[in-house]
Amino acid sequence: MKKKRLIAVIGGGQCSAPEARLAEEIGRELAKRGAILVCGGLGGVMEAACRGASAEGGVTIGILPGDNHQAANPYVQIPIATGIGYARNVAVVKSAQAVIAVGGSYGTLSEIGHALQSGIPVIGLNTWSLSRNSQPDNSIIPVQNPTEAVDKALNLVTD
Amino acid sequence: MKKKRLIAVIGGGQCSAPEARLAEEIGRELAKRGAILVCGGLGGVMEAACRGASAEGGVTIGILPGDNHQAANPYVQIPIATGIGYARNVAVVKSAQAVIAVGGSYGTLSEIGHALQSGIPVIGLNTWSLSRNSQPDNSIIPVQNPTEAVDKALNLVTD
Amino acid sequence: MKKKRLIAVIGGGQCSAPEARLAEEIGRELAKRGAILVCGGLGGVMEAACRGASAEGGVTIGILPGDNHQAANPYVQIPIATGIGYARNVAVVKSAQAVIAVGGSYGTLSEIGHALQSGIPVIGLNTWSLSRNSQPDNSIIPVQNPTEAVDKALNLVTD
Amino acid sequence: MKKKRLIAVIGGGQCSAPEARLAEEIGRELAKRGAILVCGGLGGVMEAACRGASAEGGVTIGILPGDNHQAANPYVQIPIATGIGYARNVAVVKSAQAVIAVGGSYGTLSEIGHALQSGIPVIGLNTWSLSRNSQPDNSIIPVQNPTEAVDKALNLVTD
Repeated sequence: MKKKRLIAVIGGGQCSAPEARLAEEIGRELAKRGAILVCGGLGGVMEAACRGASAEGGVTIGILPGDNHQAANPYVQIPIATGIGYARNVAVVKSAQAVIAVGGSYGTLSEIGHALQSGIPVIGLNTWSLSRNSQPDNSIIPVQNPTEAVDKALNLVTD
Repeated sequence: MKKKRLIAVIGGGQCSAPEARLAEEIGRELAKRGAILVCGGLGGVMEAACRGASAEGGVTIGILPGDNHQAANPYVQIPIATGIGYARNVAVVKSAQAVIAVGGSYGTLSEIGHALQSGIPVIGLNTWSLSRNSQPDNSIIPVQNPTEAVDKALNLVTD
Repeated sequence: MKKKRLIAVIGGGQCSAPEARLAEEIGRELAKRGAILVCGGLGGVMEAACRGASAEGGVTIGILPGDNHQAANPYVQIPIATGIGYARNVAVVKSAQAVIAVGGSYGTLSEIGHALQSGIPVIGLNTWSLSRNSQPDNSIIPVQNPTEAVDKALNLVTD
Repeated sequence: MKKKRLIAVIGGGQCSAPEARLAEEIGRELAKRGAILVCGGLGGVMEAACRGASAEGGVTIGILPGDNHQAANPYVQIPIATGIGYARNVAVVKSAQAVIAVGGSYGTLSEIGHALQSGIPVIGLNTWSLSRNSQPDNSIIPVQNPTEAVDKALNLVTD
């Protein structure tokens, strides 16, 4: 009954083809290493990551904003319909032991904020970068490719 | 990639030994029939149900009120740390296609209210009964034992 | 800068004419005694209570489920758009020092559950009554009329 | 019964003395112009803004993460105890017609993300700046001082 690691993949509900390829590869890598993928359950980066994880036999959880399980992308195996709207972003990141961001818009930015506020590490691939009062904030750990993203995420998890 | 059925088991975070036996048996039955158990992730009825489901090789999800995965009972395989407090009660019931209540106090009552408000069927075993303006409200479907509870829950699910 | 008392009025988003009269009178009484009215911000009992409070120059707060301030009834002076759906029911009752329920359906039942779980007193007028394991639960304090409801609510508040 | 404008002031729960001076002046300006101040209800920037607004006779609302009204800073006149933790950040920004950020850490960043995701304008004073994929994102409207912040916020509100 060992608890598995949950890693969140966050990013836009719509995304470019290159972003989808990155997210899918991240999903594959997470599944190969036995991690559970948690995400917001919708399209774009979330769907691509779930597709990759499912292709490798991994478990995928989608924490949905609305009431309807049917809104989940077809690769979500366990849909959690929260009914709390974008406040579900908090649950997406807090459920994870590390977060991997791929691209993304303002919703992703809110998730990065919630994760960093909670001390959950954030790994970033072609995503936001931050500065505060004109000083760079290096809290988002930059990586170059999906394998490195998953390596960092799993290495950072403290059990 | 057929989505499995999610059935919520709700009830007190502390419970009597007879309630624990009922909840454990419900967990066993759900697992035997391939349903995923979703609950609030804590002790009492939630823990007993997860223990039963795990014993039969079923999948257990705990939607926790707090930030800490460690607060989950030891039989929760997939802890979802929402950080939203008792508002997580909404997510517990909305994630399920049917809800089985065993005993329970006011938190359970709030979950029954949220489920009925959302049109999610509630099956009750030794739990709340309701009347409104002195007229009985029969929305909670009464059952006599765990097997009947699981039968009704799965029969009521519309895909 | 003395903090004023916040009293929640809960009940159906649609209601009968007699219920609306009760709620309006409760709103009037709360305003006359200097309490702030908090509610879910929508129609029915919520609107009637806000109308009554506004008529007496009271302050009215509507904690809305959605994103749109425009969804508030016209007597809400301070709309709080939560965007968290029915999980806002938790915030409605937790913001109050006492809750008055008038009629109501399952959403109101969920609010009663959340209030009692949090130790916030609930006064009821033609609303739900509860029993558990066939034993009556008398946690909802019954009253006969709006004045008595407001009397009890304000007497129960501990500062 | 004209609805008043609600403007959110966001920023750190702890802040520097210069940030507190900026926030207090923003609170004063909002009150002078008849806007209602909404914030997260705690210390730092939130407290300074409420102090300023109160000094000018303005109305202050604190949307608190926890269950306890007593956690509000002493200048919050209307405490909304949500019990939903940092998910209350969503309600803080969605309740407002414009948001003014002063300094702030990751919680403030999450609020900026939620506001921009919802199309609510964000005015920034010594706060985060953003870039995405190495391209600056200029969604946060920079201002030089409290008066300009309040001018922009009120000018941007569309009724």
